Amino acid sequence: MSPQTKTVKDYIRTIADFPHEGILFRDVTTLFADPRGFRMAIDQMLHPWAGQQIDKIVGLEARGFILGGAIAHQLSKGFVPIRKKGKLPGQTISQAYSLEYGEAVMEMHEDAIAPGEKVLIVDDLLATGGTCGAGIKLIERVGGEIVGCSFIVDLPELGGRKLLEDLGMNVHVLCEFEGA
Amino acid sequence: MSPQTKTVKDYIRTIADFPHEGILFRDVTTLFADPRGFRMAIDQMLHPWAGQQIDKIVGLEARGFILGGAIAHQLSKGFVPIRKKGKLPGQTISQAYSLEYGEAVMEMHEDAIAPGEKVLIVDDLLATGGTCGAGIKLIERVGGEIVGCSFIVDLPELGGRKLLEDLGMNVHVLCEFEGA
Repeated sequence: MSPQTKTVKDYIRTIADFPHEGILFRDVTTLFADPRGFRMAIDQMLHPWAGQQIDKIVGLEARGFILGGAIAHQLSKGFVPIRKKGKLPGQTISQAYSLEYGEAVMEMHEDAIAPGEKVLIVDDLLATGGTCGAGIKLIERVGGEIVGCSFIVDLPELGGRKLLEDLGMNVHVLCEFEGA
Repeated sequence: MSPQTKTVKDYIRTIADFPHEGILFRDVTTLFADPRGFRMAIDQMLHPWAGQQIDKIVGLEARGFILGGAIAHQLSKGFVPIRKKGKLPGQTISQAYSLEYGEAVMEMHEDAIAPGEKVLIVDDLLATGGTCGAGIKLIERVGGEIVGCSFIVDLPELGGRKLLEDLGMNVHVLCEFEGA
Protein backbone atom coordinates (compact mmCIF):
# COMPACT_ATOMS: atom_id res chain seq x y z
CA MET A 1 0.00 0.00 0.00
CA SER A 2 1.34 3.43 -0.93
CA PRO A 3 1.95 5.52 2.20
CA GLN A 4 -0.09 8.34 0.65
CA THR A 5 -3.26 6.26 0.46
CA LYS A 6 -3.16 4.68 3.93
CA THR A 7 -6.01 5.61 6.24
CA VAL A 8 -5.76 5.95 10.01
CA LYS A 9 -7.18 2.43 10.33
CA ASP A 10 -4.45 0.99 8.08
CA TYR A 11 -1.75 2.03 10.57
CA ILE A 12 -3.35 0.13 13.47
CA ARG A 13 -1.89 -3.30 14.24
CA THR A 14 -3.91 -6.19 15.66
CA ILE A 15 -2.26 -8.43 18.25
CA ALA A 16 -3.97 -11.69 19.20
CA ASP A 17 -4.32 -12.84 22.82
CA PHE A 18 -3.34 -9.58 24.56
CA PRO A 19 -3.81 -8.86 27.43
CA HIS A 20 -5.28 -12.37 27.70
CA GLU A 21 -6.30 -15.27 25.48
CA GLY A 22 -9.08 -14.70 22.99
CA ILE A 23 -8.71 -10.90 22.83
CA LEU A 24 -7.83 -9.20 19.53
CA PHE A 25 -5.94 -6.15 20.82
CA ARG A 26 -6.08 -3.10 18.51
CA ASP A 27 -2.62 -1.60 18.94
CA VAL A 28 -2.46 2.11 18.11
CA THR A 29 1.26 2.42 18.89
CA THR A 30 2.05 1.68 15.23
CA LEU A 31 -0.25 4.56 14.27
CA PHE A 32 1.36 6.89 16.80
CA ALA A 33 4.90 5.99 15.70
CA ASP A 34 4.21 6.99 12.10
CA PRO A 35 4.48 10.75 11.51
CA ARG A 36 1.78 10.82 8.84
CA GLY A 37 -0.51 8.45 10.78
CA PHE A 38 -0.25 10.40 14.04
CA ARG A 39 -0.73 13.76 12.29
CA MET A 40 -3.84 12.51 10.50
CA ALA A 41 -5.33 10.93 13.62
CA ILE A 42 -5.02 14.09 15.73
CA ASP A 43 -6.28 16.36 12.95
CA GLN A 44 -9.26 14.11 12.21
CA MET A 45 -10.18 13.85 15.91
CA LEU A 46 -10.57 17.63 15.90
CA HIS A 47 -12.55 18.15 12.70
CA PRO A 48 -16.10 17.67 14.13
CA TRP A 49 -15.53 20.33 16.80
CA ALA A 50 -14.00 23.05 14.62
CA GLY A 51 -15.44 26.46 15.48
CA GLN A 52 -16.98 25.29 18.75
CA GLN A 53 -15.95 26.70 22.10
CA ILE A 54 -13.69 24.29 23.97
CA ASP A 55 -11.88 25.25 27.20
CA LYS A 56 -10.34 22.01 28.42
CA ILE A 57 -9.26 18.73 26.86
CA VAL A 58 -9.68 15.69 29.12
CA GLY A 59 -7.51 12.65 28.38
CA LEU A 60 -8.21 9.24 29.92
CA GLU A 61 -5.20 7.36 31.32
CA ALA A 62 -2.92 6.36 29.69
CA ARG A 63 -3.12 6.42 25.87
CA GLY A 64 -5.65 9.26 26.04
CA PHE A 65 -2.84 11.38 27.48
CA ILE A 66 -0.90 11.14 24.20
CA LEU A 67 -3.91 12.32 22.21
CA GLY A 68 -5.11 14.86 24.75
CA GLY A 69 -1.71 16.53 25.02
CA ALA A 70 -1.51 16.88 21.23
CA ILE A 71 -5.05 18.25 20.93
CA ALA A 72 -4.72 20.68 23.85
CA HIS A 73 -1.51 22.08 22.38
CA GLN A 74 -3.00 22.29 18.87
CA LEU A 75 -5.94 24.33 20.24
CA SER A 76 -3.93 26.24 22.90
CA LYS A 77 -6.26 24.91 25.59
CA GLY A 78 -5.70 23.38 29.02
CA PHE A 79 -5.23 19.63 29.49
CA VAL A 80 -6.83 17.67 32.34
CA PRO A 81 -5.95 14.03 33.12
CA ILE A 82 -8.48 11.55 34.46
CA ARG A 83 -6.46 8.82 36.14
CA LYS A 84 -6.69 5.50 37.87
CA LYS A 85 -7.14 5.68 41.62
CA GLY A 86 -4.22 6.97 43.69
CA LYS A 87 -2.19 8.66 40.95
CA LEU A 88 -3.30 12.30 41.34
CA PRO A 89 -1.65 14.22 44.17
CA GLY A 90 -4.26 16.90 44.95
CA GLN A 91 -7.84 16.79 46.23
CA THR A 92 -9.75 14.44 43.96
CA ILE A 93 -13.25 13.21 43.27
CA SER A 94 -13.71 9.52 42.34
CA GLN A 95 -16.09 7.51 40.26
CA ALA A 96 -16.37 3.71 40.23
CA TYR A 97 -17.39 1.77 37.13
CA SER A 98 -17.98 -1.90 36.32
CA LEU A 99 -15.44 -4.18 34.69
CA GLU A 100 -16.04 -7.70 33.39
CA TYR A 101 -15.07 -8.93 36.86
CA GLY A 102 -15.38 -6.43 39.70
CA GLU A 103 -14.98 -2.67 39.38
CA ALA A 104 -12.39 0.07 38.91
CA VAL A 105 -12.19 3.69 40.04
CA MET A 106 -11.21 6.79 38.04
CA GLU A 107 -10.22 10.10 39.67
CA MET A 108 -10.00 13.76 38.69
CA HIS A 109 -8.66 16.77 40.60
CA GLU A 110 -11.74 18.54 41.96
CA ASP A 111 -10.39 21.95 40.88
CA ALA A 112 -9.34 20.86 37.36
CA ILE A 113 -12.53 22.06 35.65
CA ALA A 114 -14.61 25.09 36.62
CA PRO A 115 -18.42 25.16 36.41
CA GLY A 116 -19.52 26.02 32.87
CA GLU A 117 -16.21 25.17 31.18
CA LYS A 118 -16.59 23.38 27.84
CA VAL A 119 -14.80 20.04 27.73
CA LEU A 120 -13.72 17.64 24.97
CA ILE A 121 -12.94 14.06 26.11
CA VAL A 122 -10.42 12.01 24.12
CA ASP A 123 -9.18 8.42 24.24
CA ASP A 124 -7.77 5.92 21.80
CA LEU A 125 -10.41 3.22 21.99
CA LEU A 126 -14.13 2.95 22.76
CA ALA A 127 -14.99 -0.52 24.02
CA THR A 128 -17.73 -0.88 26.66
CA GLY A 129 -17.61 2.85 27.41
CA GLY A 130 -17.08 2.20 31.13
CA THR A 131 -13.98 4.35 31.59
CA CYS A 132 -15.39 7.21 29.53
CA GLY A 133 -18.73 6.96 31.32
CA ALA A 134 -16.93 7.41 34.65
CA GLY A 135 -15.06 10.39 33.18
CA ILE A 136 -18.33 11.98 32.03
CA LYS A 137 -19.76 11.69 35.54
CA LEU A 138 -16.66 13.25 37.10
CA ILE A 139 -16.74 16.21 34.70
CA GLU A 140 -20.47 16.76 35.16
CA ARG A 141 -20.19 16.55 38.96
CA VAL A 142 -17.95 19.66 38.97
CA GLY A 143 -20.24 21.48 36.51
CA GLY A 144 -18.24 21.00 33.31
CA GLU A 145 -20.19 20.95 30.02
CA ILE A 146 -19.11 18.19 27.66
CA VAL A 147 -18.93 19.23 23.99
CA GLY A 148 -18.17 15.69 22.83
CA CYS A 149 -15.99 12.59 22.93
CA SER A 150 -13.42 11.70 20.23
CA PHE A 151 -11.92 8.24 19.84
CA ILE A 152 -9.68 6.68 17.23
CA VAL A 153 -11.24 3.20 17.35
CA ASP A 154 -14.75 2.00 18.14
CA LEU A 155 -15.50 -1.67 18.82
CA PRO A 156 -19.23 -1.60 18.01
CA GLU A 157 -19.92 -5.11 19.32
CA LEU A 158 -19.16 -3.90 22.86
CA GLY A 159 -21.84 -1.21 22.83
CA GLY A 160 -19.83 1.70 24.21
CA ARG A 161 -21.07 4.18 21.63
CA LYS A 162 -24.70 3.50 22.47
CA LEU A 163 -23.96 3.83 26.20
CA LEU A 164 -22.35 7.24 25.70
CA GLU A 165 -25.05 8.44 23.31
CA ASP A 166 -27.67 7.40 25.85
CA LEU A 167 -25.87 9.73 28.29
CA GLY A 168 -26.46 12.54 25.77
CA MET A 169 -22.94 12.61 24.35
CA ASN A 170 -21.81 13.59 20.86
CA VAL A 171 -19.50 10.70 19.95
CA HIS A 172 -16.94 10.81 17.14
CA VAL A 173 -14.79 7.86 16.05
CA LEU A 174 -12.26 7.56 13.23
CA CYS A 175 -12.74 3.86 12.49
CA GLU A 176 -14.39 0.65 13.66
CA PHE A 177 -13.13 -2.90 14.12
CA GLU A 178 -15.35 -5.97 14.27
CA GLY A 179 -14.34 -8.81 16.59
CA ALA A 180 -13.56 -7.36 19.98
CA MET B 1 0.57 37.90 39.96
CA SER B 2 -0.58 39.07 36.54
CA PRO B 3 -1.23 36.09 34.25
CA GLN B 4 0.96 37.69 31.59
CA THR B 5 4.07 37.64 33.79
CA LYS B 6 3.75 34.11 35.18
CA THR B 7 6.54 31.73 34.23
CA VAL B 8 6.15 27.99 33.69
CA LYS B 9 7.42 27.42 37.23
CA ASP B 10 4.74 29.70 38.69
CA TYR B 11 1.98 27.39 37.41
CA ILE B 12 3.40 24.32 39.22
CA ARG B 13 1.77 23.44 42.55
CA THR B 14 3.63 21.80 45.44
CA ILE B 15 1.79 19.17 47.47
CA ALA B 16 3.33 17.98 50.73
CA ASP B 17 3.49 14.30 51.72
CA PHE B 18 2.57 12.76 48.34
CA PRO B 19 2.98 9.92 47.48
CA HIS B 20 4.29 9.41 51.01
CA GLU B 21 5.27 11.43 54.07
CA GLY B 22 8.18 13.82 53.75
CA ILE B 23 7.96 14.20 49.94
CA LEU B 24 7.27 17.61 48.38
CA PHE B 25 5.46 16.57 45.19
CA ARG B 26 5.81 19.03 42.29
CA ASP B 27 2.41 18.82 40.64
CA VAL B 28 2.42 19.84 36.97
CA THR B 29 -1.32 19.22 36.49
CA THR B 30 -2.00 22.87 37.38
CA LEU B 31 0.45 23.89 34.64
CA PHE B 32 -1.17 21.54 32.12
CA ALA B 33 -4.70 22.74 32.96
CA ASP B 34 -3.82 26.36 32.17
CA PRO B 35 -3.94 27.14 28.43
CA ARG B 36 -1.12 29.69 28.61
CA GLY B 37 0.98 27.55 30.94
CA PHE B 38 0.67 24.41 28.83
CA ARG B 39 1.34 26.30 25.60
CA MET B 40 4.48 27.92 27.04
CA ALA B 41 5.79 24.65 28.52
CA ILE B 42 5.54 22.72 25.23
CA ASP B 43 6.99 25.56 23.17
CA GLN B 44 9.90 26.07 25.57
CA MET B 45 10.68 22.33 25.67
CA LEU B 46 11.21 22.50 21.91
CA HIS B 47 13.33 25.64 21.63
CA PRO B 48 16.78 24.05 22.17
CA TRP B 49 16.23 21.55 19.35
CA ALA B 50 14.88 23.93 16.69
CA GLY B 51 16.43 23.18 13.30
CA GLN B 52 17.80 19.79 14.36
CA GLN B 53 16.70 16.56 12.71
CA ILE B 54 14.28 14.66 14.94
CA ASP B 55 12.39 11.57 13.74
CA LYS B 56 10.68 10.25 16.87
CA ILE B 57 9.52 11.68 20.17
CA VAL B 58 9.75 9.26 23.10
CA GLY B 59 7.48 9.93 26.10
CA LEU B 60 8.00 8.18 29.44
CA GLU B 61 4.86 6.81 31.15
CA ALA B 62 2.61 8.47 32.13
CA ARG B 63 2.95 12.27 32.29
CA GLY B 64 5.59 12.15 29.55
CA PHE B 65 2.81 10.94 27.24
CA ILE B 66 0.98 14.28 27.58
CA LEU B 67 4.11 16.21 26.62
CA GLY B 68 5.31 13.75 24.00
CA GLY B 69 1.98 13.72 22.20
CA ALA B 70 1.93 17.51 22.03
CA ILE B 71 5.52 17.74 20.81
CA ALA B 72 5.19 14.96 18.22
CA HIS B 73 2.08 16.63 16.78
CA GLN B 74 3.71 20.07 16.81
CA LEU B 75 6.68 18.70 14.83
CA SER B 76 4.64 16.22 12.70
CA LYS B 77 6.84 13.37 13.96
CA GLY B 78 6.07 9.91 15.30
CA PHE B 79 5.44 9.26 18.99
CA VAL B 80 6.85 6.25 20.86
CA PRO B 81 5.79 5.32 24.42
CA ILE B 82 8.19 3.77 26.92
CA ARG B 83 5.99 2.02 29.47
CA LYS B 84 6.05 0.13 32.69
CA LYS B 85 6.34 -3.64 32.35
CA GLY B 86 3.40 -5.52 30.84
CA LYS B 87 1.55 -2.61 29.22
CA LEU B 88 2.79 -2.86 25.61
CA PRO B 89 1.11 -5.53 23.48
CA GLY B 90 3.79 -6.27 20.86
CA GLN B 91 7.31 -7.70 21.04
CA THR B 92 9.21 -5.62 23.58
CA ILE B 93 12.69 -5.15 24.97
CA SER B 94 13.03 -4.43 28.71
CA GLN B 95 15.41 -2.54 30.92
CA ALA B 96 15.54 -2.72 34.72
CA TYR B 97 16.59 0.24 36.87
CA SER B 98 17.04 0.84 40.58
CA LEU B 99 14.49 2.46 42.84
CA GLU B 100 14.98 3.57 46.43
CA TYR B 101 13.81 0.10 47.45
CA GLY B 102 14.12 -2.63 44.83
CA GLU B 103 13.90 -2.13 41.09
CA ALA B 104 11.46 -1.41 38.27
CA VAL B 105 11.36 -2.35 34.59
CA MET B 106 10.59 -0.16 31.57
CA GLU B 107 9.68 -1.58 28.15
CA MET B 108 9.63 -0.41 24.54
CA HIS B 109 8.35 -2.10 21.38
CA GLU B 110 11.43 -3.50 19.67
CA ASP B 111 10.28 -2.18 16.25
CA ALA B 112 9.31 1.30 17.49
CA ILE B 113 12.59 2.95 16.52
CA ALA B 114 14.74 2.06 13.50
CA PRO B 115 18.56 2.12 13.59
CA GLY B 116 19.82 5.66 12.97
CA GLU B 117 16.55 7.42 13.78
CA LYS B 118 16.99 10.64 15.76
CA VAL B 119 15.08 10.67 19.04
CA LEU B 120 14.01 13.34 21.53
CA ILE B 121 13.05 12.05 25.02
CA VAL B 122 10.52 14.03 27.07
CA ASP B 123 9.15 13.78 30.59
CA ASP B 124 7.72 16.15 33.17
CA LEU B 125 10.25 15.71 35.96
CA LEU B 126 13.93 14.78 36.31
CA ALA B 127 14.61 13.31 39.77
CA THR B 128 17.24 10.56 40.09
CA GLY B 129 17.21 9.99 36.32
CA GLY B 130 16.53 6.27 36.75
CA THR B 131 13.52 6.04 34.45
CA CYS B 132 15.10 8.19 31.76
CA GLY B 133 18.36 6.26 32.04
CA ALA B 134 16.46 3.04 31.35
CA GLY B 135 14.77 4.72 28.39
CA ILE B 136 18.13 5.81 26.97
CA LYS B 137 19.43 2.25 27.13
CA LEU B 138 16.31 0.90 25.37
CA ILE B 139 16.61 3.43 22.55
CA GLU B 140 20.34 2.86 22.12
CA ARG B 141 19.90 -0.94 22.13
CA VAL B 142 17.79 -0.69 18.94
CA GLY B 143 20.23 1.76 17.33
CA GLY B 144 18.34 5.01 17.91
CA GLU B 145 20.41 8.21 18.19
CA ILE B 146 19.31 10.48 21.02
CA VAL B 147 19.29 14.18 20.19
CA GLY B 148 18.46 15.21 23.75
CA CYS B 149 16.15 15.02 26.75
CA SER B 150 13.66 17.78 27.69
CA PHE B 151 12.03 18.05 31.11
CA ILE B 152 9.84 20.68 32.71
CA VAL B 153 11.25 20.32 36.24
CA ASP B 154 14.69 19.34 37.53
CA LEU B 155 15.26 18.41 41.20
CA PRO B 156 19.03 19.09 41.30
CA GLU B 157 19.53 17.57 44.76
CA LEU B 158 18.68 14.14 43.35
CA GLY B 159 21.48 14.19 40.76
CA GLY B 160 19.54 13.04 37.70
CA ARG B 161 20.94 15.71 35.41
CA LYS B 162 24.52 14.69 36.18
CA LEU B 163 23.65 11.02 35.63
CA LEU B 164 22.19 11.75 32.19
CA GLU B 165 25.01 14.10 31.21
CA ASP B 166 27.52 11.41 32.23
CA LEU B 167 25.70 9.16 29.71
CA GLY B 168 26.51 11.79 27.05
CA MET B 169 23.03 13.35 26.92
CA ASN B 170 22.08 16.92 26.08
CA VAL B 171 19.69 17.77 28.93
CA HIS B 172 17.25 20.68 28.88
CA VAL B 173 15.02 21.71 31.80
CA LEU B 174 12.59 24.61 32.15
CA CYS B 175 12.96 25.14 35.90
CA GLU B 176 14.42 23.74 39.11
CA PHE B 177 13.03 23.13 42.59
CA GLU B 178 15.12 22.74 45.72
CA GLY B 179 13.89 20.34 48.41
CA ALA B 180 13.09 17.04 46.77
